[in-house]
Amino acid sequence: MRADWEIERKFVVNYLPEGLLETRNPVSVRQGYIAAEGERHVRIRDEGGKYSMTIKQGFGLKRMDTRIMLSAEQFNELWPLTQHMRVEKKRYRIDFFGHRLVLDVFTGHLAPLVLVEVEFDSEVHSRQFLPPDFAELEVTHRREYQNVNLARMGLPDSLAMANAY
Amino acid sequence: MRADWEIERKFVVNYLPEGLLETRNPVSVRQGYIAAEGERHVRIRDEGGKYSMTIKQGFGLKRMDTRIMLSAEQFNELWPLTQHMRVEKKRYRIDFFGHRLVLDVFTGHLAPLVLVEVEFDSEVHSRQFLPPDFAELEVTHRREYQNVNLARMGLPDSLAMANAY
Repeated sequence: MRADWEIERKFVVNYLPEGLLETRNPVSVRQGYIAAEGERHVRIRDEGGKYSMTIKQGFGLKRMDTRIMLSAEQFNELWPLTQHMRVEKKRYRIDFFGHRLVLDVFTGHLAPLVLVEVEFDSEVHSRQFLPPDFAELEVTHRREYQNVNLARMGLPDSLAMANAY
Repeated sequence: MRADWEIERKFVVNYLPEGLLETRNPVSVRQGYIAAEGERHVRIRDEGGKYSMTIKQGFGLKRMDTRIMLSAEQFNELWPLTQHMRVEKKRYRIDFFGHRLVLDVFTGHLAPLVLVEVEFDSEVHSRQFLPPDFAELEVTHRREYQNVNLARMGLPDSLAMANAY
């Protein structure tokens, strides 16, 4: 089991610096929610052929996750239950001045959204982090940018408006 | 996968006829809920060493369930998440005039509750069923007798009152 408090900040990527993604291979991620009401979310994920189930509790900077690995068969049996609550994205892992960035390029109904997440080992370190200038808008505490809400509600209005100008 | 509509009626057992359980071996069942808000319930169960996860939708006579088997390791990793949302019972399977009764003798905080469930292959057959006289009170449509609510809320008030007299 992996049951951890995760300390994470999340930003909208407003432009992709030239060359940032070209030399890297993304992993295709598809994930869906089996249960998404209330405080607990039950998510299954296929990350390049690695299958897992994560029970997510909490929201914002600090969260408690419990993850187990699934077999392909188990995943395929549960996947139909996630209909209408799915997210697909290309995931890039990028080293950035001592931090590991996780950059998600959303596909399907969530294109052209790009989000970047940074994980920290303490709240102090999370506060000290200076985001890169391609990721100015922080959305750590904005529920509409949680994957579960992106899956259910689609692109946030604020982003759709920004794209219109 | 097993994804079926289940047609089931449920009754409170108000007395146990002599000899009904004596010659039968029950299976020890412990089950708990990982997510229990809204329309979907995610339940894991240990039924005599067989581990499973069931996603339950709907309520009452007709329900849609999807079940996958779990390994002992997967079950043990998820079990801590069900704290405060658990049910333990001894389960007896009894043939009764062409029907298979599932009789649950609850233990722990739900003793002395005893429920019996009968599954049918059609709604017509479910209506024709004449319950045995030890199971007069039907609770098919009473939410307080759903296992998920027994797990969360304990014994229904109506039953607690009946036991007081």
